[in-house]
Amino acid sequence: MYISETHLRVRYGETDQMGYVYYGNYASYFEVARVESLRQLGMTYKELEEMGVMMPVLENKSKYLSPALYDDNLKIVTTIREKPGVRIRFEYEIYNEAGKKLHQGETLLVFVNKTTGRPCKPPKAFDKVLEPFFQ
Amino acid sequence: MYISETHLRVRYGETDQMGYVYYGNYASYFEVARVESLRQLGMTYKELEEMGVMMPVLENKSKYLSPALYDDNLKIVTTIREKPGVRIRFEYEIYNEAGKKLHQGETLLVFVNKTTGRPCKPPKAFDKVLEPFFQ
Amino acid sequence: MYISETHLRVRYGETDQMGYVYYGNYASYFEVARVESLRQLGMTYKELEEMGVMMPVLENKSKYLSPALYDDNLKIVTTIREKPGVRIRFEYEIYNEAGKKLHQGETLLVFVNKTTGRPCKPPKAFDKVLEPFFQ
Amino acid sequence: MYISETHLRVRYGETDQMGYVYYGNYASYFEVARVESLRQLGMTYKELEEMGVMMPVLENKSKYLSPALYDDNLKIVTTIREKPGVRIRFEYEIYNEAGKKLHQGETLLVFVNKTTGRPCKPPKAFDKVLEPFFQ
Repeated sequence: MYISETHLRVRYGETDQMGYVYYGNYASYFEVARVESLRQLGMTYKELEEMGVMMPVLENKSKYLSPALYDDNLKIVTTIREKPGVRIRFEYEIYNEAGKKLHQGETLLVFVNKTTGRPCKPPKAFDKVLEPFFQ
Repeated sequence: MYISETHLRVRYGETDQMGYVYYGNYASYFEVARVESLRQLGMTYKELEEMGVMMPVLENKSKYLSPALYDDNLKIVTTIREKPGVRIRFEYEIYNEAGKKLHQGETLLVFVNKTTGRPCKPPKAFDKVLEPFFQ
Repeated sequence: MYISETHLRVRYGETDQMGYVYYGNYASYFEVARVESLRQLGMTYKELEEMGVMMPVLENKSKYLSPALYDDNLKIVTTIREKPGVRIRFEYEIYNEAGKKLHQGETLLVFVNKTTGRPCKPPKAFDKVLEPFFQ
Repeated sequence: MYISETHLRVRYGETDQMGYVYYGNYASYFEVARVESLRQLGMTYKELEEMGVMMPVLENKSKYLSPALYDDNLKIVTTIREKPGVRIRFEYEIYNEAGKKLHQGETLLVFVNKTTGRPCKPPKAFDKVLEPFFQ
């Protein structure tokens, strides 16, 4: 299991007239969390694309427990629970500064070979950085 | 059961560098579909807010079957399967012009009294427009 | 001079907690207006990209006269005042349903050859559809 | 004159199929820069709203010198050149990690009393934190 944390400040443009973070913006927060989660492993999503794979999303789910608000400094805890194969699942929990859990969600992505457009195994370099967490 | 259809043109800014509609934009498409679904019933979400309720989202789910592309004229089929109470669930299916199903999802929302901030029954006027579809 | 009109409905996610359309969303509205403006000429921006050009933006300007609101059905009047060369300028005026002018802006774009990455003349087919308006 | 710096990482969802940051996302970057600029002064935009003012935008301008790319860690230099009165102007310059200037822009905002809806002077507390920079 691999767990990481990242922080993200809510932008004004991400709120809506209800005064909450618009429900459609959490997927973008998940993306930031995934990308920073990989960066902390020593590998960027950008590098993965440069190795010839892309990672389109297959499924995405959100539970809205309590609204995030403008200027909140959110903590996002990202978990990869199972060793990734052709598919990789990220789970997220989002907390505000008071430690209140606001949101949880998950995203299922698939590795795709950019040349063939077909699902593929993750690059070896990716397996290697994750290996210590799945023994 | 209430079923409606709406159309929506993919904007350039909604694509990402993969050349697909960014996965985080479907929630916004769902919102357009919900709102147009209500408008076709003769009631706008704006009017609902003016009646003193708001409708925050509790859950949102997406399955990405095939990517939507720039300038696609998407058809979104929106279904309310069960008579809404304090909660209301919308289901969506998104098709491209060739009739290929690209995406499916659902959103669970709750009626909240704007004054008390507490969950509440939908306004009578809302029940009335939906009544013919749930007999 | 070529003038066209398009309509666009304000989405909930485009508002912010001020209750207005977020100031950053007008550029996206301009994009919709440009694209529909070309479509009315019988040429899509998508086709232009398929002809081997892309059109990155050089400059963008907005004046916020009065806020657009949720669910407003905006009318956008788009004007190409001068015959386009390597560069093309679009001007916009945005009105609400009551006919009140809410916004004006302009965008300067450049034709770029996708292969060379260099500025280029617009495709002949593009000149041809615009020709009747610049004689 | 007050100058500050902030950093911002380009999100995947902010790119478009040209492979660049979508031109409409710079206004959101400007917002982040303004907000962090104020925070460095010891005052948040959130606090300003809590003091009873809001700051709608009157004008916004962008020059796109060179595209920002996915995962770029942008540096935004924000300048308030003139002592703010009822209006306040922010200027921005955006650089990539190699130090290349990619973008410049400016935003003109107005202080508005939330109760009356009318333009007003900035709160005293705001004048005070800016005072040292405009003597």
